Amino acid sequence: MQEIKSYICGEWKSGEGVETELFNAITGEKIGGVSSKGFDFDAVLKYGRTTGGKKLRKMTFHERGRMLKALALYLLKNKKKYYEISAWTGATKSDSWVDIEGGIGNLFANSSLRRQFPNLPYYVDGEAAPLSKNGTFIGHHIMVPKEGVAVHINAFNFPVWGMLEKIAVNLMAGVPAVVKPSSVTSYLTQAVVEDIIASKILPEGALQLVLGSARELINYVKPSDVVSFTGSASTGLKLKSNPVITQNNVPFNLEADSLNAIVLGQKATPDTPEFKIFVKEIVREMTSKAGQKCTAIRRIFVPEQYVDEVQAAVSDRLAKTIIGDPSEEGVRMGSLASIDQVKEVREKVEALAESQNIVFGDMNDFEVTGADKEKGAFFSPILFRNDAPFEKTDVHSIEAFGPVSTIMPYKTMDDAIELCKMGKGSLVSTIVTPDDKEAREYVVGAASMHGRILVLNEECAKESTGHGSPLPLLTHGGPGRAGGGEEMGGKRGIMHYLQRTALQGHPSTITEITQVYQQGAKGNVLEEHPFKKYFEELNVGDQLITEAREITADDIDQFAALSGDNFYAHKRDTNFEGTMFDEQVAHGYFLMSATAGLFVDSYDMNPVLLNYGIDNLRFTKPVYAGAKMHVRFTCKELIPNDVTEKEDDPKTKIKRGIVKWMVEMLDEDPEEPLVGFATILTMVKLKNQ
Amino acid sequence: MQEIKSYICGEWKSGEGVETELFNAITGEKIGGVSSKGFDFDAVLKYGRTTGGKKLRKMTFHERGRMLKALALYLLKNKKKYYEISAWTGATKSDSWVDIEGGIGNLFANSSLRRQFPNLPYYVDGEAAPLSKNGTFIGHHIMVPKEGVAVHINAFNFPVWGMLEKIAVNLMAGVPAVVKPSSVTSYLTQAVVEDIIASKILPEGALQLVLGSARELINYVKPSDVVSFTGSASTGLKLKSNPVITQNNVPFNLEADSLNAIVLGQKATPDTPEFKIFVKEIVREMTSKAGQKCTAIRRIFVPEQYVDEVQAAVSDRLAKTIIGDPSEEGVRMGSLASIDQVKEVREKVEALAESQNIVFGDMNDFEVTGADKEKGAFFSPILFRNDAPFEKTDVHSIEAFGPVSTIMPYKTMDDAIELCKMGKGSLVSTIVTPDDKEAREYVVGAASMHGRILVLNEECAKESTGHGSPLPLLTHGGPGRAGGGEEMGGKRGIMHYLQRTALQGHPSTITEITQVYQQGAKGNVLEEHPFKKYFEELNVGDQLITEAREITADDIDQFAALSGDNFYAHKRDTNFEGTMFDEQVAHGYFLMSATAGLFVDSYDMNPVLLNYGIDNLRFTKPVYAGAKMHVRFTCKELIPNDVTEKEDDPKTKIKRGIVKWMVEMLDEDPEEPLVGFATILTMVKLKNQ
Repeated sequence: MQEIKSYICGEWKSGEGVETELFNAITGEKIGGVSSKGFDFDAVLKYGRTTGGKKLRKMTFHERGRMLKALALYLLKNKKKYYEISAWTGATKSDSWVDIEGGIGNLFANSSLRRQFPNLPYYVDGEAAPLSKNGTFIGHHIMVPKEGVAVHINAFNFPVWGMLEKIAVNLMAGVPAVVKPSSVTSYLTQAVVEDIIASKILPEGALQLVLGSARELINYVKPSDVVSFTGSASTGLKLKSNPVITQNNVPFNLEADSLNAIVLGQKATPDTPEFKIFVKEIVREMTSKAGQKCTAIRRIFVPEQYVDEVQAAVSDRLAKTIIGDPSEEGVRMGSLASIDQVKEVREKVEALAESQNIVFGDMNDFEVTGADKEKGAFFSPILFRNDAPFEKTDVHSIEAFGPVSTIMPYKTMDDAIELCKMGKGSLVSTIVTPDDKEAREYVVGAASMHGRILVLNEECAKESTGHGSPLPLLTHGGPGRAGGGEEMGGKRGIMHYLQRTALQGHPSTITEITQVYQQGAKGNVLEEHPFKKYFEELNVGDQLITEAREITADDIDQFAALSGDNFYAHKRDTNFEGTMFDEQVAHGYFLMSATAGLFVDSYDMNPVLLNYGIDNLRFTKPVYAGAKMHVRFTCKELIPNDVTEKEDDPKTKIKRGIVKWMVEMLDEDPEEPLVGFATILTMVKLKNQ
Repeated sequence: MQEIKSYICGEWKSGEGVETELFNAITGEKIGGVSSKGFDFDAVLKYGRTTGGKKLRKMTFHERGRMLKALALYLLKNKKKYYEISAWTGATKSDSWVDIEGGIGNLFANSSLRRQFPNLPYYVDGEAAPLSKNGTFIGHHIMVPKEGVAVHINAFNFPVWGMLEKIAVNLMAGVPAVVKPSSVTSYLTQAVVEDIIASKILPEGALQLVLGSARELINYVKPSDVVSFTGSASTGLKLKSNPVITQNNVPFNLEADSLNAIVLGQKATPDTPEFKIFVKEIVREMTSKAGQKCTAIRRIFVPEQYVDEVQAAVSDRLAKTIIGDPSEEGVRMGSLASIDQVKEVREKVEALAESQNIVFGDMNDFEVTGADKEKGAFFSPILFRNDAPFEKTDVHSIEAFGPVSTIMPYKTMDDAIELCKMGKGSLVSTIVTPDDKEAREYVVGAASMHGRILVLNEECAKESTGHGSPLPLLTHGGPGRAGGGEEMGGKRGIMHYLQRTALQGHPSTITEITQVYQQGAKGNVLEEHPFKKYFEELNVGDQLITEAREITADDIDQFAALSGDNFYAHKRDTNFEGTMFDEQVAHGYFLMSATAGLFVDSYDMNPVLLNYGIDNLRFTKPVYAGAKMHVRFTCKELIPNDVTEKEDDPKTKIKRGIVKWMVEMLDEDPEEPLVGFATILTMVKLKNQ
């Protein structure tokens, strides 16, 4: 028996003996065995926190992001191997695509998020909070990496995606991971980790892999760690109730299977394209991954007058779905992950059959193509019908984790919403309707018990990613039965591994800590113009105080003529009664333009490459002819900008960074000189090309 | 014995008998008794979810915000009564100010947050996520009120603030509350609730008050509820481990007392103003509220060479602090909240005294002014000294919840950080230093184990709100021992009572649901110019497609002359080699100005009052002379704008709203016409003045 080794404390290691034997789900052949017996879990966690964590925490978000991109590219090169091994789990090629390339896609997506983070090891969250009258005391928030490990206890259904979607996030956050996949399919996870370790792209200690039982792993976690669990609600409950978790207030993210629903809108009558989209989505979700998805559709709600039609259409499509060895031509559904799962799903189907009828499929009588039905973990799609879903309620609580779903009628949209909520909290639901108002009614009514809602119609169906797919930029998780957790969601996910800390102090202090210039902080007035400095030469707080310029009535007239903006407030002869102004007022965009005239340095070929945009421009009081305005122009933030070189375009090869500048437009009023403010963005050349 | 009644299910009600007798902390006189025996807690929670919740959930954030403002103004009028009752708890006038006016301040602060929320019952979170190549399928997030109740189990120390800081947040979110204050000081909470109910400002059912024991209240919570607990770690642990909480994945926010530290920076030598600020802050935190604050300073870290000096200075100030009946002239510190608390704190001081020495104060021998020392709950300030804080570690785990703190030496900043973290997670710490780089070193090193860090120096000390005060705009809570919870923090706090739901669909669908125009959604091209419509007449998606305008080289030259912006890229004779451009390029601000010229309607006195600012302007490609540009101008979002009337300024009386417009600048390129985009803000008159 081949021992499949864990990677802990810097080495590949086997536990004592064999705890669990692993089998090919299609052929029933033995693959190998895993064991974690005798592992020193305290040492594993400590190794992560110190060896891995220390290195990760020193890296900036941009460095971590580039690391993830390198890892993603490296794994893509090796993907053929993973597809081969994935077939042993019973997955079809498209199931494997979701697992393998979907997983790698999470690395890319998280890598790209670096652009939304500073080039620091920690994040600056939101805007400063004014806390004092004279502005000498303000508040802000930073979020620093937790100084612990992310312990991921993962489900069997997505051995690659399940690992990568989670570690992509904690690695971006600067937190190392200990991954404990479900044993059943852990040989695939292991194959990927083997390559990751060999690549040396991650710092040593950033990723450890424990195969076999989790044993007392949880007993060594600390408040600085984060535990996440994906799988059954019962195991999740056991883990999260562990006193070590509760006593130390260890963050615990639970993502449990749920009884997800799909609703056919009342406006999606059988003659609409949406009706067909509905049927197709159901069958796809029932058969892909043989229904072994925590997001799969378990409950189908249909306006009562269309139930028969939906049942017939779904049954028809299911009948055409060929089950068998996915390497065989035409096979559309593979096997479950193991013989144990077959037993498990069969028990749940039998339990459900006590309150509702099977209208398609037979657990004993179905055909398998290209494989031995007795040796592989095959299962027939099963479609139930339940005509009294408010009374026969097992369907809202018993989950068969396979290709099993139930059609039910509903009368009104309120009923449909209530029925969906009877799942007591779901990861996802879908409404299919051509009517956006109906979609809104459903979404707003059902959202409080759902982590994600997909609205399908003809316009988006072609590009839709489908009911079952959690995406890196959207949150994944749901309330109640679905675990009450939340992960991914772009930036949001990364924050689960960071500690948010409120800061209070003088704006100069907060500027120093956040490396973002805060209004009221002491500026560093430069002798030369800041536009003469290269990116590396600039510092947050570098400041230019410009000369003053008078805004004349002629200026305003000329600007109106040149821009074409003849809004009444900018004309001399307007009757200003009942308006917000006393007389001809300068255009806001003229003020911004004149401001640029004041702060822009005109000498040739300075390191400033271009003006990129504006964030948060506000005009705070009207400027009338005769006002004298000057500008305080301060370097607010410095952000790296990766170059994506294009062979034929020399412009793309210029190395540069993004510089945000705080622009304060000031007049001569001694008490309230602020006329407007903005944050402008420039692209600035690096000296070191 | 006066029964102090609870307010549940729409009526004032007493439980059976008297469970707990309440006493005046200064005089020892009986105040009354409370009991919750016989209450139907299932009915209480259901009443909140339905009667209160249904009404609150229908209100928009703006309506809820105005409701909170009305409540705050109402309570302020009655504050004198609360001050009188607050004195019975042992509080000085300034202690009461924090509790009463600080609490009401939370209502105001949360009310103001409405401006950051849409005028909908639910929130639209973040930006849309692009999910498809052709843009027909996008993602977004909304956050809807949980359809449950907020159950708050509060501590005794801040009977008013403790309630208001929490309900301000859940009411803004649209979630009703059931408040269960600690019995000891619940007579004060009850006095405030009595006024709130009488005012009828909140919808019936939005606030219920349970006095006495919480009993089996927790046994009836559901996944849609949120439970928060403030108080001791042990009671918190018991509650959060309740199987009803864990099995249903009920969100539980724990905020526990912690061993908060203050650090004297190495640059804050005894000759600096910061040294005095440090001493003052310690004494204030030890004596205010008689040290009964979850945020109070329990551990004082001082560079080893200054320990004696700090000890002398703190002792000197403590010696001058007069203890007694706060109504007496000169009294600076009141009593603990009850005789039970005296016993409790005494035990903890004795436990601490086993490993460290008392250097100031005597629990048996101290003076009390204006009250009977034997009858009131008085306690002496106690200052410990511990010269070996790495070895004698009780100080990092035993908390005496009174005027008790310990001075300890440290050698290096790394040591100071490590010592602070030995508290295993704190709500807050403070560093006092004149050196921002030292502050940054401390903050970045210590943040992972702290919920808040205050940096004090001479420049901000005058306006500082102090170490001990959680503020509505900053998060409150800390990891590990501090409970692992988080509350307040402005908008962030409100989100704890909302369910985040990811949405997927066509941009038109997402526009309908979010009521924010999404790029790619179908626009509603108007027959008349949108600037001719009043605020109430506008709809999200209303659209104007403008004529085209050619950008000429003369235009660019004229704009350079008028604005003064002679950046090299805008000049005809520049050598463009090594720049980002091929030839003379139009100024971004000129494009924005010309864009305004295209979309602005020039007829007199239209309902548009003014141009307010720009969010997120980006220039996506260069525009050279000869380009023809037009604009797609779409109503993106409609936000109410409350009028704050000033008697002498008719402008302030014009009723109006804020309209955000999506501006897309387009050239004639058939494939990639987008030249730039922006969100601009206008103020638009209401028809109904």
